[in-house]
Amino acid sequence: MAEDQEKVLFQRVSLIGLGLIGSSLARAIKRRGLASEIVGYARSKKTRETALGLGFIDRAEETAATAVEGANLVVIAVPVGATGAIVQEIAPALSVGAIVTDVGSVKGAVVEAVAPHIPEGVHFVPGHPVAGTEESGPEAGFAELFEGRWCIITPSPGSDAGAVARVESLWRAVGSEVDQMDPQHHDMVLAITSHLPHLIAYTIVGTATDLQNHLQREVIKFAAGGFRDFTRIAASDPVMWRDVFLANKDAVLEMLGRFDEDLTALQRAIRYEDGAALEEIFSRTRDIRRSIVEAGQA
Amino acid sequence: MAEDQEKVLFQRVSLIGLGLIGSSLARAIKRRGLASEIVGYARSKKTRETALGLGFIDRAEETAATAVEGANLVVIAVPVGATGAIVQEIAPALSVGAIVTDVGSVKGAVVEAVAPHIPEGVHFVPGHPVAGTEESGPEAGFAELFEGRWCIITPSPGSDAGAVARVESLWRAVGSEVDQMDPQHHDMVLAITSHLPHLIAYTIVGTATDLQNHLQREVIKFAAGGFRDFTRIAASDPVMWRDVFLANKDAVLEMLGRFDEDLTALQRAIRYEDGAALEEIFSRTRDIRRSIVEAGQA
Repeated sequence: MAEDQEKVLFQRVSLIGLGLIGSSLARAIKRRGLASEIVGYARSKKTRETALGLGFIDRAEETAATAVEGANLVVIAVPVGATGAIVQEIAPALSVGAIVTDVGSVKGAVVEAVAPHIPEGVHFVPGHPVAGTEESGPEAGFAELFEGRWCIITPSPGSDAGAVARVESLWRAVGSEVDQMDPQHHDMVLAITSHLPHLIAYTIVGTATDLQNHLQREVIKFAAGGFRDFTRIAASDPVMWRDVFLANKDAVLEMLGRFDEDLTALQRAIRYEDGAALEEIFSRTRDIRRSIVEAGQA
Repeated sequence: MAEDQEKVLFQRVSLIGLGLIGSSLARAIKRRGLASEIVGYARSKKTRETALGLGFIDRAEETAATAVEGANLVVIAVPVGATGAIVQEIAPALSVGAIVTDVGSVKGAVVEAVAPHIPEGVHFVPGHPVAGTEESGPEAGFAELFEGRWCIITPSPGSDAGAVARVESLWRAVGSEVDQMDPQHHDMVLAITSHLPHLIAYTIVGTATDLQNHLQREVIKFAAGGFRDFTRIAASDPVMWRDVFLANKDAVLEMLGRFDEDLTALQRAIRYEDGAALEEIFSRTRDIRRSIVEAGQA
């Protein structure tokens, strides 16, 4: 659409991984004309063909290394556990001056896995768009996914300021607000805002799945009582989330420990019928909802 | 609206409690012309005045007893812990042939608290519309709340079949599907589909609230990662939910025990980096989401 055209930010963008995030970013770049060419790579041939068919990439390559040749920006959009190996694979093919970024939900482990493979003259700018849905795959993406959402950039002290600025402009151009953070701090914040909620949602849906057959049918029937919100979260991509928990183990276990203490306290209040304690806890949590609504993130 | 008019089901309906559920039911009854007169009672004068101002009741009374005089149907829509006392209070004023129903999220404890107070010639038909939002109060209600949702009726073996049928027609007339269940079975099903999800949401939002100040600000900022769904649930009415957990203590503790075992297993899989176990659990939960979407409850 002509009214959406902005200036070209990168001549050639290469996308490694064409799932929900990769394909959404490609669509957003294309709609706004932010790149002259988008090259895509995905491990599965079917995904590459789907991507070409949907038209959000201009060209598909059969290897990650050929996909990044001559690219000004390379976006790694694969499960975090696969990021290190794929960067090692593409490293020899990267052009001098190229910028490599990623979209992983964990930053400390990604930086550790990626940094040693980045060649001289190539800039690595780790990023994390805090956006997503429970869907996955190239068909699930949409150009508006990042609008009004945050993207967290976690550069290291030695990062090239120009490269950081260019990655930030890309995210701003697709509608996001950008924040900078230390990778370890990012991982702690995301452990409580995203990783623990997903872990808990997976757990309760799993608990319900193990109920006797007749109860399980009723769980589905009466899901509107609160359960269905959890099932939406627990429908997220299993491999992506497996990798998140393995890569952010320490922060997740820390937050899980706090959660567990608090749940035990509530359990005790129910067992001993301490209505005042229950009401106090349930009242406090309303305030945080109000703050989220006011912050426009609801 | 004329096209919504159905036959009058009850000459006079009395609503005891004018919060989210009570006021939504009143609006739905009024829109469809299901009653000739709706009389309302709420403990707070302000709520009664708001209800009159919004026009979803025709008349407000200052006591619950005067509100039920001459009523053909009395709907108790107060927190479950207050239900027994309010029925005891209105009992002497109930007309012979009147039907008393309720909308409580717990049925065993409500039946136990209410049944002894129901006078000869009055029919008690316990009910639970599985519908709601995180909002509360008379302004929060809307006529469409029950459309496409389930209402569970838990009559006892000796319940008057005609009275049960009339309560069921009311819920069907406001757009719900109706199911019948034993009160104890209801409480077990709701413990996993509704009560445990709320308890967990309250817990995780509470855990986040206790974080150091700077982390708490970031929790609000980056809530889109999954956390905000929990804050919505955890913004529900504190008194209503306090009563639910106290009234359904046994079933909630039973489901909480199962959840806790499953969470501990996941925690262990993360600690020992058992990726295969994580992926297997995360894959299983996708199926239950699919079933809920197919059942039209998503």
